[in-house]
Amino acid sequence: VTRVVLLTDFGTADGYAAAMAGVVASAAPEAVVEHASHEIGPGDILAGAFALSRYAHLYPPGTVHLVVVDPGVGTQRRAIAATVDGRHFVGPDNGLFTCVLEGARRARIVAIHESGRGPDASPTFHGRDIFAPAAAFLARGGALEDLGPSVVDPHILEVPRPERLADSVRGEVLQVDRFGSLVTNIPASWIREMGGAVGAVHVWLDGADMGPIRRTYGDVPTGDVVALLGSRDLLEISVRDGNAAARLGADRGAAVEVRPV
Amino acid sequence: VTRVVLLTDFGTADGYAAAMAGVVASAAPEAVVEHASHEIGPGDILAGAFALSRYAHLYPPGTVHLVVVDPGVGTQRRAIAATVDGRHFVGPDNGLFTCVLEGARRARIVAIHESGRGPDASPTFHGRDIFAPAAAFLARGGALEDLGPSVVDPHILEVPRPERLADSVRGEVLQVDRFGSLVTNIPASWIREMGGAVGAVHVWLDGADMGPIRRTYGDVPTGDVVALLGSRDLLEISVRDGNAAARLGADRGAAVEVRPV
Amino acid sequence: VTRVVLLTDFGTADGYAAAMAGVVASAAPEAVVEHASHEIGPGDILAGAFALSRYAHLYPPGTVHLVVVDPGVGTQRRAIAATVDGRHFVGPDNGLFTCVLEGARRARIVAIHESGRGPDASPTFHGRDIFAPAAAFLARGGALEDLGPSVVDPHILEVPRPERLADSVRGEVLQVDRFGSLVTNIPASWIREMGGAVGAVHVWLDGADMGPIRRTYGDVPTGDVVALLGSRDLLEISVRDGNAAARLGADRGAAVEVRPV
Repeated sequence: VTRVVLLTDFGTADGYAAAMAGVVASAAPEAVVEHASHEIGPGDILAGAFALSRYAHLYPPGTVHLVVVDPGVGTQRRAIAATVDGRHFVGPDNGLFTCVLEGARRARIVAIHESGRGPDASPTFHGRDIFAPAAAFLARGGALEDLGPSVVDPHILEVPRPERLADSVRGEVLQVDRFGSLVTNIPASWIREMGGAVGAVHVWLDGADMGPIRRTYGDVPTGDVVALLGSRDLLEISVRDGNAAARLGADRGAAVEVRPV
Repeated sequence: VTRVVLLTDFGTADGYAAAMAGVVASAAPEAVVEHASHEIGPGDILAGAFALSRYAHLYPPGTVHLVVVDPGVGTQRRAIAATVDGRHFVGPDNGLFTCVLEGARRARIVAIHESGRGPDASPTFHGRDIFAPAAAFLARGGALEDLGPSVVDPHILEVPRPERLADSVRGEVLQVDRFGSLVTNIPASWIREMGGAVGAVHVWLDGADMGPIRRTYGDVPTGDVVALLGSRDLLEISVRDGNAAARLGADRGAAVEVRPV
Repeated sequence: VTRVVLLTDFGTADGYAAAMAGVVASAAPEAVVEHASHEIGPGDILAGAFALSRYAHLYPPGTVHLVVVDPGVGTQRRAIAATVDGRHFVGPDNGLFTCVLEGARRARIVAIHESGRGPDASPTFHGRDIFAPAAAFLARGGALEDLGPSVVDPHILEVPRPERLADSVRGEVLQVDRFGSLVTNIPASWIREMGGAVGAVHVWLDGADMGPIRRTYGDVPTGDVVALLGSRDLLEISVRDGNAAARLGADRGAAVEVRPV
């Protein structure tokens, strides 16, 4: 079975997501449609890129990831399809595939050509009229190159980079998850290279001491702040059984520093 | 594969939607269950009817649409099943199928008879005890007529109609979508017949000028209002990268007029 | 087809739920992944247990229920798998399976052993690294006993019990559902044994009279309170076309009494 996995910012209540699923079901009847999420914040391309990179590689090779967070729909931004390390990706060329492409060993990208779009493609719903048909084409075993000409300069988001100083690391909060955990852009590997053991370094958020790096939430009492190396191999700041973003008043962009005490 | 596609106002957190899916899985093991949405506003039949009509026809013939927004559950309202242009529909006879039936070329409708309900059918959860079994029966290839006697007078909602005046068109906002876009009841075809070209007419919302009709969101600067012919072939009023409902303080029922400047 | 049905408190927007689905898809390619819900309140084990018991038994034997509401992830709480009346269950041993186990005719439970976890299992995301692989193993037909040693003392939540007095029944609100209905812990069978017929007894919520027990919502006018025997065979208090929790200011734990007028 080939899976077509949808990720959008459409919500479900308006029927837009189901319209895409229906198009795939009609054009690729043997494919299985799965829904990763339709709850990406409206127009939040970075959140879409980030969520996608949590799961895309965990699906088997041949899976088609159909990803639409597309505030520029109908403008001159390209529609693209890509094969990255054996999985396929279809969506707008607006940076949605930034994290996937940056982690890629091997990637081929094409711009979906006009003739594939049909004369009646809506200028406001390419998810239904361009991306879903292209995803179904790939799910049926169609060749990526048949969708359009090669692209060598996909749009890449400027994701804030962490930096290493003499004896510390500086970064920032990249994302706040459902639990209110603050996911930073500081790689776990950098922390481990600092000497790594629990207690050797502390984490500061906007200048306030968040304590040492722990193993898991349960290492602190309920309600306490806990910094740890998260499941995406990035430094995270959480509150056990609570919401760190609300409790600490922090959001994307908040400054994070790790340094010896 | 036959698909059974669920649409309800149940949310997912209470397990009601999964109960329906489980009943279908047990009664029609070869069918594929898909979830269009469970986020229709509680009891909002019109929103359910509207969402359903965005995607029902895009699924392949033979698909069973299992649709439950059912504030009158347990009363005398009928339970119905229908075959409309090759797709099946199961749900309460309360107007949920209004948009689907109005766009139909060919429709057969039956009232699901009591003997099919089982003696223990809950008077408050027909989704699980009546509609899901009927949907599974159709998914297994059962004949519509075997579910019950023919219905010729399905409940049809009074959807507000637009009107054509001498040199203008009047309608209203029918629905607000997740992005805050105001979807009106004015057909794109009427606008096109007015002379259609961009700039020939302006759109007024509650008497305020929303400007000409554009092609897509990107035709105005970020934050500006944009009127366009939406993906459902209806006039829509949006704010680029913003929320028109919040920005304009408009909701269902707001008056919309289109006329030459 | 074997179904793996997910229930979590992860939401969908961060990609955690899709990560679990992707792991299952890779490890058990022939299995069908379904999503019951990812909208359980963060860390709300009781709500997860309650939702699960609404639908788990309705899926066909052989179904694997993968359930993760896991505030204690990474602590010493066990990871368990169980076979209960023909369906499989995988998740943390924190009480999530309380309702399923209490209703069981036959249950076998094992603690998932360490060697199955892989050396790189994240201490904060067992859903992806421990539970999803175990669920896929069972979906492929693996034997429960191969996952680890037998467990005879699963964690059981202290669910508040109703009590029978001389001529009345006392209980409390266990759960508030999406519609604002107050689901109590008082079994329908107890009410029926009291003489049961409509009008023979009234329901009191926090000392206020909610009236007699009706058959369905439509038995009272719109906006009125209605007590009835709900689809889960428990006493419920609702407001027709409204929200009882908001209207009555009641939440989990509110006292409920049923007694003759």
